[in-house]
Amino acid sequence: MHILLLVAHGSRRQESNLEIESLSKKIAKIESKEFDKVMPAFLEFASPSIPEAIKKCSEIGAAKVTILPYFLSAGVHITRDIPNEISEASQNTPGLDIQIANYFGSRDEIAEILMKTALDIK
Amino acid sequence: MHILLLVAHGSRRQESNLEIESLSKKIAKIESKEFDKVMPAFLEFASPSIPEAIKKCSEIGAAKVTILPYFLSAGVHITRDIPNEISEASQNTPGLDIQIANYFGSRDEIAEILMKTALDIK
Repeated sequence: MHILLLVAHGSRRQESNLEIESLSKKIAKIESKEFDKVMPAFLEFASPSIPEAIKKCSEIGAAKVTILPYFLSAGVHITRDIPNEISEASQNTPGLDIQIANYFGSRDEIAEILMKTALDIK
Repeated sequence: MHILLLVAHGSRRQESNLEIESLSKKIAKIESKEFDKVMPAFLEFASPSIPEAIKKCSEIGAAKVTILPYFLSAGVHITRDIPNEISEASQNTPGLDIQIANYFGSRDEIAEILMKTALDIK
């Protein structure tokens, strides 16, 4: 089983964390031969944390986990915090193959979507 | 003149702020009849701040500014911090028409792009 872990920053505001859960469900509805399950995880302010989510993946029988960082730019969370958390968590799940996707903000489509967002209030 | 202000969180990591400047230039290259100029602004850790950028827009002769929040979820920055900063700044620029676009994370396209990002490491 291959699980996709949508990793978001997390917010003090619960509605914002619910948005991530809802996005995770939306991604799960997109047909893909690759992923059997999509789950959310949070760096701060919400649960599950990244280590908790990775442990859960292992417990429910995942062989592989793809971490998908839902962050806009390559700040310290991307360069340091998330890799550190994954590295720690992976020591407790030796059989689990963990890979990290590029962060969301690296996508070329973003400029175009931002322009559409700006024009949508006209 | 109508200026589009791309408002990002800002990072302690300078490379991350440069990504936003580069994104702002990329948006400026998209043809639009609506916007004459695209500029970045930051909530924290980088300059110009939102009030600084709004002041600048007014000084260079903008009649209208559209604030485009480059944030993924409707956390406290979207619901409180950005509106507060805009409200304060607008008191010093009485002739300037300021409107706020929806935040980036509200876009429907995001789930699909996230799935593509996850699949791109295969």
